[in-house]
Amino acid sequence: MAKERSENWKYYDHLKKIYKKPEDYELAGKSYTRVDAEDKVTGRAKYTEDIILPGMLYGKLKRSPYAHAKIISIDTSKAEALSGVKCVITGKDFHGGKLGNPEAFKELADKDPLCRDEVRFVGDEVAAVAAVDEETAQEAIDLIEVVYEELPCVLNSTDALKDDAPAVHYPDTHNISMFTTMQAGDCDKAFAEADYTDKHHYSTQMMVHAAIEPHGAIAKWENNELTVWTTTQGAYVSRFWIAYGLGIPQSQVRVIKPYVGGGFGGKLDAFPHELSACLMAMKTGRPVKIILSREEVFFGTRSRHPIEFTIESAFKKDGTMLAKRCQHVLDGGAYGGSGIAANALSLIWATFPYRIPNLDMTARRPYTNKPASGAMRGYSACQVHFANDVHMDEVAEELGIDPVELRRINGCVPGYQGPTGLQVTSCAFRETLDKASEAIHWEERKNNLKPGEGIGVAGSGFVSGTGFPVLETPAYASASTTVRLNREGYATVFTGANEIGQGSDTVMTMIVAEELGLKMDEVKLVQSDTTLTPYDAGSFGSRVTFLGGNATRRAVGDAKLKLLEVVAESWGCKPEDITMKDHRVFIKSDSEKNISYSEGIWMYEEKHFGKAVIGVGSFAHDGDKDIYVKNEGNYAPAYSFSTGAARVEVDDETGCIDISDFIFAHDCGRPLNLRAVEGQIEGSVLLGLGFAVYEECLFNEKGKMLNPSFRDYRFPTALDMPQIQSIICGEPDEEGPFGAKEAGEGSTAPVGPAIVNAINRATGLKFHDLPVTPEKVWRAIKEKKAAEAANH
Amino acid sequence: MAKERSENWKYYDHLKKIYKKPEDYELAGKSYTRVDAEDKVTGRAKYTEDIILPGMLYGKLKRSPYAHAKIISIDTSKAEALSGVKCVITGKDFHGGKLGNPEAFKELADKDPLCRDEVRFVGDEVAAVAAVDEETAQEAIDLIEVVYEELPCVLNSTDALKDDAPAVHYPDTHNISMFTTMQAGDCDKAFAEADYTDKHHYSTQMMVHAAIEPHGAIAKWENNELTVWTTTQGAYVSRFWIAYGLGIPQSQVRVIKPYVGGGFGGKLDAFPHELSACLMAMKTGRPVKIILSREEVFFGTRSRHPIEFTIESAFKKDGTMLAKRCQHVLDGGAYGGSGIAANALSLIWATFPYRIPNLDMTARRPYTNKPASGAMRGYSACQVHFANDVHMDEVAEELGIDPVELRRINGCVPGYQGPTGLQVTSCAFRETLDKASEAIHWEERKNNLKPGEGIGVAGSGFVSGTGFPVLETPAYASASTTVRLNREGYATVFTGANEIGQGSDTVMTMIVAEELGLKMDEVKLVQSDTTLTPYDAGSFGSRVTFLGGNATRRAVGDAKLKLLEVVAESWGCKPEDITMKDHRVFIKSDSEKNISYSEGIWMYEEKHFGKAVIGVGSFAHDGDKDIYVKNEGNYAPAYSFSTGAARVEVDDETGCIDISDFIFAHDCGRPLNLRAVEGQIEGSVLLGLGFAVYEECLFNEKGKMLNPSFRDYRFPTALDMPQIQSIICGEPDEEGPFGAKEAGEGSTAPVGPAIVNAINRATGLKFHDLPVTPEKVWRAIKEKKAAEAANH
Repeated sequence: MAKERSENWKYYDHLKKIYKKPEDYELAGKSYTRVDAEDKVTGRAKYTEDIILPGMLYGKLKRSPYAHAKIISIDTSKAEALSGVKCVITGKDFHGGKLGNPEAFKELADKDPLCRDEVRFVGDEVAAVAAVDEETAQEAIDLIEVVYEELPCVLNSTDALKDDAPAVHYPDTHNISMFTTMQAGDCDKAFAEADYTDKHHYSTQMMVHAAIEPHGAIAKWENNELTVWTTTQGAYVSRFWIAYGLGIPQSQVRVIKPYVGGGFGGKLDAFPHELSACLMAMKTGRPVKIILSREEVFFGTRSRHPIEFTIESAFKKDGTMLAKRCQHVLDGGAYGGSGIAANALSLIWATFPYRIPNLDMTARRPYTNKPASGAMRGYSACQVHFANDVHMDEVAEELGIDPVELRRINGCVPGYQGPTGLQVTSCAFRETLDKASEAIHWEERKNNLKPGEGIGVAGSGFVSGTGFPVLETPAYASASTTVRLNREGYATVFTGANEIGQGSDTVMTMIVAEELGLKMDEVKLVQSDTTLTPYDAGSFGSRVTFLGGNATRRAVGDAKLKLLEVVAESWGCKPEDITMKDHRVFIKSDSEKNISYSEGIWMYEEKHFGKAVIGVGSFAHDGDKDIYVKNEGNYAPAYSFSTGAARVEVDDETGCIDISDFIFAHDCGRPLNLRAVEGQIEGSVLLGLGFAVYEECLFNEKGKMLNPSFRDYRFPTALDMPQIQSIICGEPDEEGPFGAKEAGEGSTAPVGPAIVNAINRATGLKFHDLPVTPEKVWRAIKEKKAAEAANH
Repeated sequence: MAKERSENWKYYDHLKKIYKKPEDYELAGKSYTRVDAEDKVTGRAKYTEDIILPGMLYGKLKRSPYAHAKIISIDTSKAEALSGVKCVITGKDFHGGKLGNPEAFKELADKDPLCRDEVRFVGDEVAAVAAVDEETAQEAIDLIEVVYEELPCVLNSTDALKDDAPAVHYPDTHNISMFTTMQAGDCDKAFAEADYTDKHHYSTQMMVHAAIEPHGAIAKWENNELTVWTTTQGAYVSRFWIAYGLGIPQSQVRVIKPYVGGGFGGKLDAFPHELSACLMAMKTGRPVKIILSREEVFFGTRSRHPIEFTIESAFKKDGTMLAKRCQHVLDGGAYGGSGIAANALSLIWATFPYRIPNLDMTARRPYTNKPASGAMRGYSACQVHFANDVHMDEVAEELGIDPVELRRINGCVPGYQGPTGLQVTSCAFRETLDKASEAIHWEERKNNLKPGEGIGVAGSGFVSGTGFPVLETPAYASASTTVRLNREGYATVFTGANEIGQGSDTVMTMIVAEELGLKMDEVKLVQSDTTLTPYDAGSFGSRVTFLGGNATRRAVGDAKLKLLEVVAESWGCKPEDITMKDHRVFIKSDSEKNISYSEGIWMYEEKHFGKAVIGVGSFAHDGDKDIYVKNEGNYAPAYSFSTGAARVEVDDETGCIDISDFIFAHDCGRPLNLRAVEGQIEGSVLLGLGFAVYEECLFNEKGKMLNPSFRDYRFPTALDMPQIQSIICGEPDEEGPFGAKEAGEGSTAPVGPAIVNAINRATGLKFHDLPVTPEKVWRAIKEKKAAEAANH
């Protein structure tokens, strides 16, 4: 590997000798049941909504009916007078900072916990009430009288950039909340020398996460400490913003993440309902719970950025890609939050999985008067890979090169170093391409398609963990774990990794059990509680398995080494001569020489005067620092690669799209829990399918969302799912925990373009704008037939 | 100091250089508010009884009406048929071991969780029921039909030792559950050479702890793990016995200690209600709560051993004590449990606070058919010091030496090494004697007493932490703590120390805050939960401040050193050049050079790639090993010393005793929280007062307790309290945390004998048997007057 190993790795090198060797793995790579399965299937799992505290009040939020308006006055007197109402707050009651994300960019934070002067989207929060029950709280909300002066609004990114557009936040900025560029090589020269250039426009729609659990929070104020249970993807991140928004020290806030019913990026930010619950708990001295309705989750939380793409590419005749120019315009909605990262990420994804030596790219994220866009699973990657991989098929057609072959020619290879600093280590992109196309019977089918049948492929790459370069230190985006070995025959792991349904609790448990030779139920997991667990930046950027997993393996390794050093000294051997398996500590060369796990811990504690065997581990990717500053550098410690292949049948009478097969070939290194990886892939296909042909948030001309419900916002259900075949590719990554790389986000990105490429092939049409709904297909087929008829 | 410092100390020596120096202490030695004060005064504190879980069942126990009987049959059919009853269990449902304490003596464990064949006291547990409410459970208990065959019973220790006594457990053992001897020097020679010898008999009564919170437990069985909330003084100890009694691995049991409303030794053992709640939770799959009634706490838990003492002592004319022979007979009640330690402890206490070169002592603990005796605050010491210090006054009178002077002559001094291995380090016994006698105006008053007025003094010594030498390793009785320093400006301490009302949470918090220069509320405490906190043997033997406190200081020291090493490297100085104060890290020689606490942690985390700053500390007294085996060795790492001085007025018409003043002079090293030490002393006086003149459990001839209620069992209340003056003596102990020694148990022991010595002086009588109730005094005065009248 060309990539130089960073200090982060070297620091923990001494543990390598006592890590379990691949030939001894008993759990890693196998399938096993989630540790939370029984809690979840029995309904015992406590989600935020399930928590009831004595004396608890229930809160509701007052929201703006206007997309853009000045707040002239707020009269809360009638609400306050209502019996059962304990607290009414407005923006003026907050004395802390504005909300944003991440901490490093807190100067860019732009969202008052409750609006003070202006509202910026239909649903923007202007007041909150806490009352003895939800009905009373809602009644009080309706009694709050807000006088607005309506302002002109802007509802799409193209309009937002115009010179005469109304300013959503700041005048004279063209509404741009973030501007990013990335250049490499010499694009002008490459375009001039190219055999072929192509230019197209693509666009994607606004989509929501539709997590099964709505957002909610409960706050309790006791002994001058705020305890907050909240639906978060990052307990530590939530804590920062809660403290910051309230203007109190973080040491006065404890955030506990209960079970979370899906996040998908939508639970990364700090939300007005959290801050309002906190402030009202502080004012009343009683716990306050606010759970958003499904409708509020749609327009009051976060959504996926709609992006407009203009892509120009330059190729040689033989298919070698020479250069790409592109402009991304992301519709940011009314606020920043985690959404401001979308811009830079969209450019990063555009640099791979294909090798492009010359790049000239810009991304702009204008504000609009719509709900804020934010992170969503496959953050910016779903949109970017859709545009790029549909573009790739168009280029292939023009060049007369098979689309699979064109991708093979240009795809990343192990050790590839991108022109902007990308450093690929393990990479099985070509294998994913080969296996996916083989499984879809590409060669047999491509020239023998039935009428209305189409096949398509698409590739993608994704980061295995990334981080924000806050305070110019990688420690900010770190993961830290502690592990305690217990003389009573088990281990306890304290991890900040935020289980949000993805299975991280199971993976952290497995890592500890595997290293110590314990059973899964002999590892107790303590997770995501700022008092109990060490710092972890949260569940985003596909960082949990790689960063959290490595931190956990290093922590258990640290504890294991301490233990083995004592045993080795007693046995007159070296720690690396000893292995742990089946609840026993063995000397490798002499299986007769062994003691139980508990006896080993006793031996340590006796020697160390009762000291608990504690291991500490961490992971901090130290290659990130320059990315957001100079837009160059290596984005992540490892990269996953994948190819999706779809076979569709399109009914030319109705436009209906039947996805008959979906093949997903994914290089995620060694899958730590095979069943979980397959589950991630199947979930990814569902998400990609919804993105490609089903889902879209619709607004009227006043900025009101028209379909904020599971009835009107159509996403695919189990009945809509195609037959999915998952193919795990690649080799264990040298630096992943037990060789693992990410499996949850990268896998979403190639689904949409593979399906659209198949639809384009099936219909002979070129769809550039998502979603490709049956209606859109039907209209396009009708137009095409009319045009053909007119030509004949 | 003659005592050689053990390896335990040397292991942590490297931390001494960065510990805060006495001149910089900001908290240690001062008075401050308990960390749990607000929770307790607002009623927010959750005790076991306050915990309510969804679907919870309520349990009750069926108890024996006989002091001794064979169980012929148990018919539970009617109980099972009762609507609302979910589970009925008897002894046969348990498949684990018998209950006892400590773990090291599990071969001696003698108590089935529910009786199988025999019942051994009135109240012995034979069956348990779980039902939807307490009333139904009680109704079901009454429907259980047990057929007994009554057996002869034995109700006091003298009868129990007789050849023809019925066997409470095992035939041909004279009912002796424990036999201990201790010899040193040559007693025969010393007695032969003595100027004066004396022999007396003393006795003490059965007494209960009367903790304000009754015993109770809640058990939940989920995911093959048992979670138990229980009123325990040792979460880890409870876990051992719960697992052992159920026959499941400890790794399947999690014990959580909620707030506990007083333990005083009565919540150290494993109890049938705990095991029954667990088994019924496992059988029903629903949480089961059992809270004992006040009556059940009286006869169904533990009580203080009544002891019969025969003491012979040998003195020189000048008051020098030469030798002591004594026999202790302890009434053990029906079972062993923690009570089996009482025997050896009674001999240990007899070796100090007076220097006795020649010793010949035996202790026997016979079983009787009464409730089991166990640990109680000042375990065996209250009884032993009563007998020894009343004896001392009698000797003083015979020798014509002032009682204070006799104690001064014989009292322990710093560096004293006892003939059985006792190694005194810091010792201010003489100072306590001087200050107490001065404060009671001993010299002025002793020859100017009004009729009916008396003054008395008594001394005691106690261990600062001891442990059970289980598995022949001191690690068994260890305390271990971890401390995490958090970049957000606070610290988290994980301690197994069991707060039972004594204030240990406050002390652990203070230790961490003091070392780090934080405020008390910037230290979050996580305590007494076997999953969250490292091993701690429990709250007993006055071990918490000394062992737990040292473990915590070592843990925070370990973390602090890690931090300071990084800062020192950056500043080009040594860790010992740096101090932490007011939330900042300073270089001592240059107060301008400083960073905030948070910045310091960032510095560490950056250097160590996001690794959490974790410190681990422990304390394991390694001098204990031989005590219970050979009855010699050093019992504890340090010793407290005290003198009590009482002034009483006895009404010779009624026998009423008015304790007008009580002076308590205590050498506890540096008091960590002055207010808490004073509270401990005041509580000790209350307890000693009850022991001396109020409390006694009474039984009828069938072994039924006659006064199991707060109405019939009279203990002193606030209105009965004398004026108390606390005097803190001594110097900081070299090895105590911040110089502290114990303050909670040793302080109980001299109260009784000081009061009785004062009564004896006031009345001219010799009371040898506790309690010295007004009735007893009145009768004795009447007899004395009658005798005097007869003589005239």
